[in-house]
Amino acid sequence: MSMINVGIIGGTGYTGAELLRLLAGHDHCQVAIVASRSEAGRPVADLYPNLRGHSDVSFVDPTTASFKECDVVFCATPNGIAMQHAPELLAAGIKFIDLAADFRLHDAELWSKWYGQSHACPDLLKDAVYGLPELYRAEIKEANLVANPGCYPTATTLGFLPLLLSDFVDPSSLMSDAKSGVSGAGRGASVSNLFSEVSDSFKAYGVAAHRHHPEITQTLQQLTNDPVSLTFVPHLLPILRGIHATLYADLRPKITLTQVHAAFEEKYRDEPFVDVLPLGSSVETRSVKGSNMCRLAVHQATGSNKLVILSVIDNLTKGAAGQAIQNMNIMFGLDEQAGLGGIGLMP
Amino acid sequence: MSMINVGIIGGTGYTGAELLRLLAGHDHCQVAIVASRSEAGRPVADLYPNLRGHSDVSFVDPTTASFKECDVVFCATPNGIAMQHAPELLAAGIKFIDLAADFRLHDAELWSKWYGQSHACPDLLKDAVYGLPELYRAEIKEANLVANPGCYPTATTLGFLPLLLSDFVDPSSLMSDAKSGVSGAGRGASVSNLFSEVSDSFKAYGVAAHRHHPEITQTLQQLTNDPVSLTFVPHLLPILRGIHATLYADLRPKITLTQVHAAFEEKYRDEPFVDVLPLGSSVETRSVKGSNMCRLAVHQATGSNKLVILSVIDNLTKGAAGQAIQNMNIMFGLDEQAGLGGIGLMP
Amino acid sequence: MSMINVGIIGGTGYTGAELLRLLAGHDHCQVAIVASRSEAGRPVADLYPNLRGHSDVSFVDPTTASFKECDVVFCATPNGIAMQHAPELLAAGIKFIDLAADFRLHDAELWSKWYGQSHACPDLLKDAVYGLPELYRAEIKEANLVANPGCYPTATTLGFLPLLLSDFVDPSSLMSDAKSGVSGAGRGASVSNLFSEVSDSFKAYGVAAHRHHPEITQTLQQLTNDPVSLTFVPHLLPILRGIHATLYADLRPKITLTQVHAAFEEKYRDEPFVDVLPLGSSVETRSVKGSNMCRLAVHQATGSNKLVILSVIDNLTKGAAGQAIQNMNIMFGLDEQAGLGGIGLMP
Amino acid sequence: MSMINVGIIGGTGYTGAELLRLLAGHDHCQVAIVASRSEAGRPVADLYPNLRGHSDVSFVDPTTASFKECDVVFCATPNGIAMQHAPELLAAGIKFIDLAADFRLHDAELWSKWYGQSHACPDLLKDAVYGLPELYRAEIKEANLVANPGCYPTATTLGFLPLLLSDFVDPSSLMSDAKSGVSGAGRGASVSNLFSEVSDSFKAYGVAAHRHHPEITQTLQQLTNDPVSLTFVPHLLPILRGIHATLYADLRPKITLTQVHAAFEEKYRDEPFVDVLPLGSSVETRSVKGSNMCRLAVHQATGSNKLVILSVIDNLTKGAAGQAIQNMNIMFGLDEQAGLGGIGLMP
Repeated sequence: MSMINVGIIGGTGYTGAELLRLLAGHDHCQVAIVASRSEAGRPVADLYPNLRGHSDVSFVDPTTASFKECDVVFCATPNGIAMQHAPELLAAGIKFIDLAADFRLHDAELWSKWYGQSHACPDLLKDAVYGLPELYRAEIKEANLVANPGCYPTATTLGFLPLLLSDFVDPSSLMSDAKSGVSGAGRGASVSNLFSEVSDSFKAYGVAAHRHHPEITQTLQQLTNDPVSLTFVPHLLPILRGIHATLYADLRPKITLTQVHAAFEEKYRDEPFVDVLPLGSSVETRSVKGSNMCRLAVHQATGSNKLVILSVIDNLTKGAAGQAIQNMNIMFGLDEQAGLGGIGLMP
Repeated sequence: MSMINVGIIGGTGYTGAELLRLLAGHDHCQVAIVASRSEAGRPVADLYPNLRGHSDVSFVDPTTASFKECDVVFCATPNGIAMQHAPELLAAGIKFIDLAADFRLHDAELWSKWYGQSHACPDLLKDAVYGLPELYRAEIKEANLVANPGCYPTATTLGFLPLLLSDFVDPSSLMSDAKSGVSGAGRGASVSNLFSEVSDSFKAYGVAAHRHHPEITQTLQQLTNDPVSLTFVPHLLPILRGIHATLYADLRPKITLTQVHAAFEEKYRDEPFVDVLPLGSSVETRSVKGSNMCRLAVHQATGSNKLVILSVIDNLTKGAAGQAIQNMNIMFGLDEQAGLGGIGLMP
Repeated sequence: MSMINVGIIGGTGYTGAELLRLLAGHDHCQVAIVASRSEAGRPVADLYPNLRGHSDVSFVDPTTASFKECDVVFCATPNGIAMQHAPELLAAGIKFIDLAADFRLHDAELWSKWYGQSHACPDLLKDAVYGLPELYRAEIKEANLVANPGCYPTATTLGFLPLLLSDFVDPSSLMSDAKSGVSGAGRGASVSNLFSEVSDSFKAYGVAAHRHHPEITQTLQQLTNDPVSLTFVPHLLPILRGIHATLYADLRPKITLTQVHAAFEEKYRDEPFVDVLPLGSSVETRSVKGSNMCRLAVHQATGSNKLVILSVIDNLTKGAAGQAIQNMNIMFGLDEQAGLGGIGLMP
Repeated sequence: MSMINVGIIGGTGYTGAELLRLLAGHDHCQVAIVASRSEAGRPVADLYPNLRGHSDVSFVDPTTASFKECDVVFCATPNGIAMQHAPELLAAGIKFIDLAADFRLHDAELWSKWYGQSHACPDLLKDAVYGLPELYRAEIKEANLVANPGCYPTATTLGFLPLLLSDFVDPSSLMSDAKSGVSGAGRGASVSNLFSEVSDSFKAYGVAAHRHHPEITQTLQQLTNDPVSLTFVPHLLPILRGIHATLYADLRPKITLTQVHAAFEEKYRDEPFVDVLPLGSSVETRSVKGSNMCRLAVHQATGSNKLVILSVIDNLTKGAAGQAIQNMNIMFGLDEQAGLGGIGLMP
C-alpha cells in the first residue's frame, strides 16, 4: 500500500503537536506539510523536542504552502480558519478533517450565533460528517469533509449514547458536570492558563453558556424523538490531559442498573476505543493519558432513580488528534487502530 | 481575659496540624496538651516544621494525658475515638468539639449502619449540637458538646441553605457534584493517596454510598417540610486543599436568578465566613486556601430551570479545624473571628 | 501610634498581590494607593478575590495618582520603572522600597549591561541600601531608599553568609543549584509559563547567564577579601511558591561540620526570620509557604570536603513582599515582625 | 522468528507496570508469567486499567509459579529478592535481568554495607554485566545475567561518560545535583510519598548517603585512571516521572565548550536512545516522559571553568523498564529499539 500524504494546517498548537506525535508512529502515513504562520522555517522538532529523531519536517508558511501533494489535510487551527481552506482543498480532491468547530453544527445561523462570525461556506455544512465513529462510521467512510468532535462532546456523547438509543432514560433530564485538563485551553499565551493561576486550584467556567452545549445537544437529539434537555457545566482541572464527564440522567421506571450496563456492553462490544468497565468500577483520567480510549463506568445513586455515568478520555487524543486519525483511517480504508495503539501512562 | 486552655486528641493528622497552625495565631488560647499515640514525646514542631518558633509543645500519650487543666478539648481522630473520650471529659466540665463524625447523626442506629460499629454513648447524641454556625449559632453558644460538620457537608449545606429556607427550589431535585483536595483523605499511609496515584489525574469515588450523604440530608431536611432527595457524587482532585461543590436544584416556577441571588445576600450579609459573589462570578478553591471563608456563586443553566450553585471552602479550615475554632469562639463568647483572619493564598 | 500610609506602584502582579495580602494583616499600616495602568478603576478584591472583605481599595492610574499622602511607596513593577519614580518621591520625603532590580547593583554600568538600558538616576545608587536585614539592618534603619533583594539572592546569600563571615570555606568554590516555583516568573502572559508547559516537568534555564548572578556576587564579595567565584544554575520547579537553593562550598582544612553548624546558629540566633535546623535535617519548601521564614540545613557530602547547605524561602514572601515589609518595619521603627506572623501551610 | 517468552517477578510495582506497558507493544515478546505475592489471581489489567485490552494475564504466586517456559525473567522487586531467584533460573538456562540493585556492585562486601544484608550469591557478581548499553553493549550481548542500572546512575553516568573518556575534565571535581519524580520511590504505602506530603513542595534527601553513590562511582572509575570523586545530592520533584541531573565538572585547561559538545556528539552519534542537543539548549523532563530517550545539553558557567551538563530521562523507562527491555533486545539479537518507539508526551 502506498503511503498517505498528510498535510497539517496549524501545527504549533497542542492538537497539532499531538497529531505529529501520533502520525510519527503510523505506518501508512507521512507528514508532507505542516503549516504555521508564526513558526515558518523552524523544524517541528525544535518546538517540540519530544519529536527529535521522529520528525524531520519544518513548518512552512500557510499562505505559500502547496497542499496539492496531500491526500488529506488536518486543520488544527482556531475556529474560523478551516472554513477559509476547506472549499479549495475539497475541490482539489483532498480529504479534509477539521479539528476545530467550523463544520460541527448543521445550521449556519446557529453557528454564527455561537462563534460570532458568519460562516464562509454554509453550503458545505450539509456535506460535513460529524466524526464520531461510534455513531457515524458508515458516513465517515464515504466522507470527504469530516468535522472532528469537540472534547467535551466526545466524552459526553459516548456516555449518553446507549442510554438514549435504548430509551432507558428521560432525555429531558440530562446533565454533564464535566472537568477538563488545561491542555484543552490550547497553547495561547493567556494569564488565565498560567501555571500560577491554575495549579493547586479548581473552578467552574462558562456556566451560563459554552459552545459545546449546542454541539452536544445536536447529536443527542438525533438519538431520540423526545426533546433533549441538557445542563452542561464545564470545570478546569489542574492536570495536563484528560476529561472526566460525570453524567446524570433519570432512569425510566422499572429499568435496572444491570440492564443499563448490559446495554453499554452490547453497544460498545466491538468498538476498539470504548471500554465499558465492570459494574462497581471507578475510572481515572490517567488510565487514558496519551491513549485514544474512552473508558465508561455506570452507577446508580443510592435510593434514587438517578443514573450516574463516568466517562473519561484524553482531550488531546480521543478528544481531538487521536479521533481525527481514527477518522482518517476509516476514510482511507485502513485498520481503524493504525497509529493509535498507545497505552495510557500509569503512573 | 484569661487564656483558654486547649487540649487536642489526635494531633498528628492534617486536621490536628491545622488546629495547631490556627491556634498559634489565636490571642486568647494556649495549647496545653496535644495527644498522639504514635508520636508521644516528640515535639510537635519536629513533625510539622512550619510550626518551629510558633509551638513548643510535645505530643503526649493519650492514655496518660490529663486533660483536667483544659477548658476545651478538640478531638481530631479517626471516627469512633471521640465517643470513647467525650463522656468523661464532659462530666469533668470540659467542653468537647469532635472533628470526626461520632456525634453528627442524631440517630444512633443510622450512625451504626454507616460507621460499622455500635455507638459508645448514644445518650449524648441528643446533647450534641451540629456545629454549623450559620444555622445553629444560638445552640452552639450554649453547647458543651459540638459535632463539627464534615467538609463536604459544610460546602454543600451552605450552598443549599438559602434556597431551602426561601422555598425557591424543589427539595427533591438536589444534586451535589463535589470535588475534594487530597488532604481530605488524611495522613494515613495508603497506596491510593500516593502522589504517584493521584497527581495529574481525576476520578469519582464512593458513588454508590458515602458517609457524608446521610449527614447532609439530615441537615437539609430540617430546613423544609417537603422530603429532601439528594444525589451526591464525590471526586478526588489533585490539589492539596479545597472543596468545590457544584450544586444543582430545580427552580420553582416564576422564581428568578436575581431573587435567588438576593436571598443569598440577605441570608449571609452578616456572616463573617460566607462570601456571596456578584452575579456572573466564578469561584476558585485557591481564593480560600488556608482561610476559613466559604465563597458562593449562583448561576442558572441556559434555557432551563436548573439552578447551579458553586461553593468553595478549604477542607482543612472551614471544612474542619477553622470551623471548629469558630465554634469554640462562639462557645466561649470570644470574637467569632479570633484566630481566623488568614487570607487565602493567591497564587 | 498613627497609621503608616502605604502606596504601591504595580499592584497587579504577584508581588503586589502578596504585599496587599500581608499588609491587610498589618496593624500599623493602611494601603492608601495602589497604582496599575492596566486595571485602573477596578477594585483590588475583584482581581484577587482572596482579598474580598480585607481590602476596599481600587487600582488607580499611576500617571494621575498622587502619592503625596504616603509615608512609603513600594514599587512592584518590572525592572526599569522604579527608577522613573524614585527621585520625585524621595525628594518629597517619601521612603521608597523597590522590589525590582533598579537599585540593587552599585555600579550603573554593570546594571546597564545586565538590564539592557541606561540607568535613569545613577546618582541614587550610592544612597540605596540593599535590603537584606540579616546583613544591613543598621543601614536599613537609616535608609530612605531600599533595594529589596531578589529571591534567588536572598536564599543563596543567607546560606553562604555565615560561611564567608567565619572564613570556613574557600570563596572561589561557591555553587548554587537553585530551584524556583513558577510564581517567581510573574503574572505576564507568556507561553513558557503556561500550566501546560510547566506542570509535571522540570528544567534548568539561564545557565549561561542570569541577572541574579552579579547581584549575589556583589553581596558575597563584601564578606571576604578573597575573590568570590560563584557558579549559579537556576531551575524552574512545578510548584507555585518556594525557592530551594542547594549550595555547595569547599570546606577549609580542619573545619568540621559541627563547627559550621554552630556558626550558623550563632549568626542567626536572634534573627526572627532565619531558622537553622538541627544537624541531619532536611528542609522542604512547603514549610515556608506563605511565611517570611528562611530555613537552613547544613550537611557535608560523604568522604569529601564539600559542604552542602539547603536553603528554602517563599519567593513571594521572604523573597519579595515579606522582606519588603520587614524592611519597612525596620525603617519606621516598628516591631520587625509586624504583619509577618504567617505560618507556612502544611499540607 | 518465534516469540520470546517473558516472565516478570514483582509485577505490581511501577517498574513492573512499565514493563507490562512496554511489552504490550513489543512484537517479538509475550508475557507468559507475572508473579506477585500480594495480588495472586488478580488480572493485571484490573490493577492497571490502562492495560485493559492490551494484557490478559493474571498475577500468579511467585512460590508456585513455574518459569521453565520462559526465555528471560525480569525481576522488578525490592532489593534482596532477585538474588534469591537468579541462581536457579540461570541454572535452568533462563536469562535474568534484575531491575533492582542485587547485582550492580562488583564487590559483595560493599554491597552488604550499603544494602544491610549479606549477598546470597556473591559468586554470580562477576558474571553480572552492568546493563548500560552505551558502555557495555558487547558484554550485554553475551550476558545471561544483567544488572539493570539505577535511575540516578543512568542519568548521571550518560552525562559524564564522554567527559571522562575524552579526559576533558578533572575526575575529582564531579558533582551531580539530581532531581527525581516521585514514581522513583515506588508504590509502597508510605506517608512520605503521599500526595499531601509531596505536592507543591520540593526537598533534598539522602544528602549524607545514598545507595546510588557507590554504583555511579564504580562505573565512572572504570573510565579513567585518575581517582574519581563525586558529590551526589538527590532531590524529590513533585512530578510523576522524570529525572533531571544537573552535572558539574571542572574543565581541563584549554578545553573549549565546542570541543566538549563535539565529543558528546561523536560518542552518541549512533546511539538510538541518547540525544545530544545543540549548544545553547535547555532540556525538559517532559520531552522524555514515557520514552526511553536520554536527552543531554552541555553548558559552561559564565567566567568559570565549570562545565554544566543537563541530563534528563524518564526514571521508569530509560531509568528502569525501558532500559531493561533494551538490554533484552541486545541479549536476544533483536532490533535494539523494538518495543521502545514511544515518544515523550508534550504536553
